[in-house]
Amino acid sequence: MSDLPPEVTVREVGPRDGLQAEEPVPVEARIRLIDALSGAGLTKIEAVSFVSPKAVPAMAGAAEVMAGIARHPGIQYSALVPNRRGAEAAVQAGAGALTAFLAASDGYNRKNVGKSVEESVADVAEVVAVGRGAGLPVECTISSAFGDPYEGEVAPERVAEVAGWLADAGVEAFSLGDTTGMASPTRVTAVVDLLRERLPEHPLNLHLHDTRGAAMANALAGLQAGVTEFDASIGGLGGSPFAPNAGGNLATEDFVHLLEDMGIGTGVDLPKLLEAAAIAQDLVGHDLWSHLPKSGPRRGGAGNPGAPERRR
Amino acid sequence: MSDLPPEVTVREVGPRDGLQAEEPVPVEARIRLIDALSGAGLTKIEAVSFVSPKAVPAMAGAAEVMAGIARHPGIQYSALVPNRRGAEAAVQAGAGALTAFLAASDGYNRKNVGKSVEESVADVAEVVAVGRGAGLPVECTISSAFGDPYEGEVAPERVAEVAGWLADAGVEAFSLGDTTGMASPTRVTAVVDLLRERLPEHPLNLHLHDTRGAAMANALAGLQAGVTEFDASIGGLGGSPFAPNAGGNLATEDFVHLLEDMGIGTGVDLPKLLEAAAIAQDLVGHDLWSHLPKSGPRRGGAGNPGAPERRR
Repeated sequence: MSDLPPEVTVREVGPRDGLQAEEPVPVEARIRLIDALSGAGLTKIEAVSFVSPKAVPAMAGAAEVMAGIARHPGIQYSALVPNRRGAEAAVQAGAGALTAFLAASDGYNRKNVGKSVEESVADVAEVVAVGRGAGLPVECTISSAFGDPYEGEVAPERVAEVAGWLADAGVEAFSLGDTTGMASPTRVTAVVDLLRERLPEHPLNLHLHDTRGAAMANALAGLQAGVTEFDASIGGLGGSPFAPNAGGNLATEDFVHLLEDMGIGTGVDLPKLLEAAAIAQDLVGHDLWSHLPKSGPRRGGAGNPGAPERRR
Repeated sequence: MSDLPPEVTVREVGPRDGLQAEEPVPVEARIRLIDALSGAGLTKIEAVSFVSPKAVPAMAGAAEVMAGIARHPGIQYSALVPNRRGAEAAVQAGAGALTAFLAASDGYNRKNVGKSVEESVADVAEVVAVGRGAGLPVECTISSAFGDPYEGEVAPERVAEVAGWLADAGVEAFSLGDTTGMASPTRVTAVVDLLRERLPEHPLNLHLHDTRGAAMANALAGLQAGVTEFDASIGGLGGSPFAPNAGGNLATEDFVHLLEDMGIGTGVDLPKLLEAAAIAQDLVGHDLWSHLPKSGPRRGGAGNPGAPERRR
């Protein structure tokens, strides 16, 4: 298998995308989770979202979370922000980077934020202005990049068009969101290849959901297409709002385990990451989507004495 | 993404590898499941296992299952057999193909069947003799082909050595078993490439478990390496005996959905396959590992009116 990158950055989004889908957990518990994740060696953590607490109750208290976490040098604690006001609040709270968002398609964008994609680009431009004023990097997530649950297909050309608008608005990097798990490896390749051709100076991140069981295969396709940054969520927490209980985000611990086994460095300490997963499970109070907490790492399975036998 | 095959055969192993891990279900229910699977267009179904009912109680009644299923032309109903006696019973019961098994490594083989791999090759040779006498194809699964939970690493050279012994014993095709979920995409590529070089006339099947969340990515690596037949289990039923509740086999419905989305033909009717998954869930009485029964197919998700909004 050729063309795999030697190193990959895993951006942890569990405290934001993972917990936003759960019953609200206290600020102190969110801080404990973030500190455990940073202690495991993750260098990018999407810690909070400055959206309306009425719309997303689980994300209330973002400023308190940002004030309470233990800041480690070299770790970027980013905030998801919907608009100028959210961006200003994030800067005020000491975010290290801003992530704006919109959808590639009008169908999902209208349902999500009540406006067209072009109208949302104007919001993103305001986020860029706030970020520049504060000296912070601004990325934008393009959701429904591989399909829209309302519109169906989203052409790679459309994703490239929206990315072009965002580049013109000053966005420095993109995250391609498979918000409702509609991607497949060939779709990932098509969109990534086109964006790398059109906007080669803009780094790409993949934000994959496991709604239909394809997240890890889609990540492999992304690696092969040259993507070196991926969002992942501890325990696989999160998920598509259109398919409750179908599966969450790409799970950080499963992904880190696989990358390391393939010789791709992540800088993450897997045992410490599994401790963070245990905290996450404790916070949400239900079984996680991920596998590693149950199976243990590949190298740790020798001689399980309680294993039933006579299986092939 | 180049080098993908235009068509893939999915061999359904849920009635055998899936149900053997469950509390025993009645013969009539197993027949109902197999008939639903054949009705969905799967052309190869591992229906039963002729092992000792004492060792694997859930597989008792194999002859009754084989006698009760509705035989459709063009569908191969195979039986897993451990030795000559099992092979004779399978022939007697009207199996359409025999699958022998052993491990690539002595550690797992001794734990599973109490003998060395070389001793097991002699058993496989006897299965081949029975199969030839009855005019049936004989395949052999090589388990622990990507790692052994007792020994740790299993070198691709070792897998090729064992496959060579099996070829000399008359085995016509191999299934490479990732019995305890120790494979990764690079490991799949290494073993498949070596076997295709050494034994190019012997078709390869991949039997993947999702113990550590990598089954779908490993399947993609297999497709890219030229594998065109995969085992899969309805609902993802089954799993590694070393990691209870970690995850089962590659799930048939998730895999078929992904293949078809990538333009790879399977001949399987997805709605009927989902009906079979519902039967499987009913039989085992617990949640399935697979995603499609909860998410629905990619094209079926439009405009879910109950979906929460304001998610990226």
